[in-house]
Amino acid sequence: MKNMAILSIFFLLLTSCLKQAENNQVEVVAKDTITTSVDPLPSWNEGVTKDAIINYVEDVTKKESDNYIPEIDRIATFDNDGTLWSEQPAYFQLFFAIDRVKAMAKDHPEWKNKQPFKAVLENDINSLMASGEKGLMELIMKTHAGITTDEFEKLVTDWLATAKHPRFNKPYNELIYQPMLELLDYLRANQFKTFIVSGGGIEFMRPWVEEAYGIPKDQVVGSSIATEYDYNNGAPVIRRLSKIDFIDDKAGKPVGINKFIGRKPVFASGNSDGDLQMMQWTDSNSYKSFQIYVHHTDTEREWAYDRESHIGQFNKGLDEASEKGWTVIDMKNDWKIIYPFELEQ
Amino acid sequence: MKNMAILSIFFLLLTSCLKQAENNQVEVVAKDTITTSVDPLPSWNEGVTKDAIINYVEDVTKKESDNYIPEIDRIATFDNDGTLWSEQPAYFQLFFAIDRVKAMAKDHPEWKNKQPFKAVLENDINSLMASGEKGLMELIMKTHAGITTDEFEKLVTDWLATAKHPRFNKPYNELIYQPMLELLDYLRANQFKTFIVSGGGIEFMRPWVEEAYGIPKDQVVGSSIATEYDYNNGAPVIRRLSKIDFIDDKAGKPVGINKFIGRKPVFASGNSDGDLQMMQWTDSNSYKSFQIYVHHTDTEREWAYDRESHIGQFNKGLDEASEKGWTVIDMKNDWKIIYPFELEQ
Repeated sequence: MKNMAILSIFFLLLTSCLKQAENNQVEVVAKDTITTSVDPLPSWNEGVTKDAIINYVEDVTKKESDNYIPEIDRIATFDNDGTLWSEQPAYFQLFFAIDRVKAMAKDHPEWKNKQPFKAVLENDINSLMASGEKGLMELIMKTHAGITTDEFEKLVTDWLATAKHPRFNKPYNELIYQPMLELLDYLRANQFKTFIVSGGGIEFMRPWVEEAYGIPKDQVVGSSIATEYDYNNGAPVIRRLSKIDFIDDKAGKPVGINKFIGRKPVFASGNSDGDLQMMQWTDSNSYKSFQIYVHHTDTEREWAYDRESHIGQFNKGLDEASEKGWTVIDMKNDWKIIYPFELEQ
Repeated sequence: MKNMAILSIFFLLLTSCLKQAENNQVEVVAKDTITTSVDPLPSWNEGVTKDAIINYVEDVTKKESDNYIPEIDRIATFDNDGTLWSEQPAYFQLFFAIDRVKAMAKDHPEWKNKQPFKAVLENDINSLMASGEKGLMELIMKTHAGITTDEFEKLVTDWLATAKHPRFNKPYNELIYQPMLELLDYLRANQFKTFIVSGGGIEFMRPWVEEAYGIPKDQVVGSSIATEYDYNNGAPVIRRLSKIDFIDDKAGKPVGINKFIGRKPVFASGNSDGDLQMMQWTDSNSYKSFQIYVHHTDTEREWAYDRESHIGQFNKGLDEASEKGWTVIDMKNDWKIIYPFELEQ
């Protein structure tokens, strides 16, 4: 079952966008560029979605409100892929794994004739998919394990500084959503503690989320592989092992929230069926809670996908949101801009 | 190995202090009673220990210092048992388990003749110890698993509101160390983020640590059992399973720190060999770091134990502290008072 979840996370390479990365510096994302003291959500168009957010926050933070929530209980959880940054044409972590295989290939001449590595090196998607669950687990373990946590952090940081997204030709960590940055800031300004709760790798996210989202490393929940402490003759390291520790997806999200945060959220945001259990869990809070789904409806500026998508499938969640009255962001109509770099144009 | 660790945590009932709890209200601990604007550590006697703490904090928080540490990197981790509250004559969580067995016994008539429950019900320590690792695992699972997280939280809260420590006849959560409360406050006033990193159960600590120590639930790292999400026909719960998930002790502490916090501490405090790897890990920080061990030296006001103790053994840690120049608190001489309730006398 764990492997199936990994499969659902990674086995999603639908395009041949295997363009090799170029060497370039990451520009610092100007996340606060357009916040003003008047409108906390300037990149959101006026309408029911924006009103719903503001009405909720004002309601639960007013001391005299029947729905007042003490500060300590103001926990807000955000999915990452497809909720805080893009996830097309494949999860960005998969691009990282593919780039790792290519970078490591010179030390692994045997990969030229060994699947799934051969498929990656030849940009051969059909063979990669044919390598199945076993092949993909091997791909993940070879590229994510067998090194120390410090070494892995450096790999991620270096990759972000050089790799570019195939469609936008921008560093991956610039493909974050400006309206969501404003939402995070707005919640924090109202004493919500903001967390990431993502199916993505916890150690893949931690190196860059502080700068990108203003969320500290210890407020990141994600999938993980097992690790072990090694005293290493007085120069201690933590080694990443070839073994899954935890999959933070679907029913794993409430489990991860309970384990890492220890308190039920009052505010949750996601974009796919993988977030549905987190939404349900939040919805069961005895405090007034708020659920907000990002619906990808903008082919031109981002992507449009939902019920049939192999990445970020949004089917059961869309039905349950409608049934339970959760807020659904219509990206095309609710967001004035998508990415921070649009502000500079 | 995991079971051995559990064993080392729980198999430590050395006395027959199995006194049944009485019904009484917990008094709110007046943790800030004696802090002043002049002396941040008023319950600490003047001397090398207090000086070492203050010198460190002043050094690393001064912008112009060579040892300046940015706020985001000011992570301070504290063991709980024996470091923030007492752990004698047995870990307080074991008293909880024993009281649970007694409370549950009426629904389990078979326990009268079944070990390890029979031993607990008869206050028969020898037989309890003879039940071995298997018996103790059974004791833990019967008293800590098979219920929802909400139910478990209520059990812990109710227990703290009624149970009394056999020696002091006080609620267990009043046996916290006033000097350490001041240290926590002092660090936070200097923008350190304070965490608990304990071998104790994470869900046993979370219900009361916020009030006791001012540490939010999401800043608690501890041992855990596996859990599972259950939609439960629209009233979702998280169920506690009869399976160990993680043991946050010894080499597990750096692993837990990496998993939950994602950043190496600069300040660590413990009291036993179970904290040694956390100390080593912190000591390997490229920032100037600080390690401080609580040495239990006060038979009169608390307890005195170290190298030979079955609870909180402090042997390798004592040697390594001396070798590496870590700070060791001499409880008897460094602390003016031990518990907050002494202030009221």
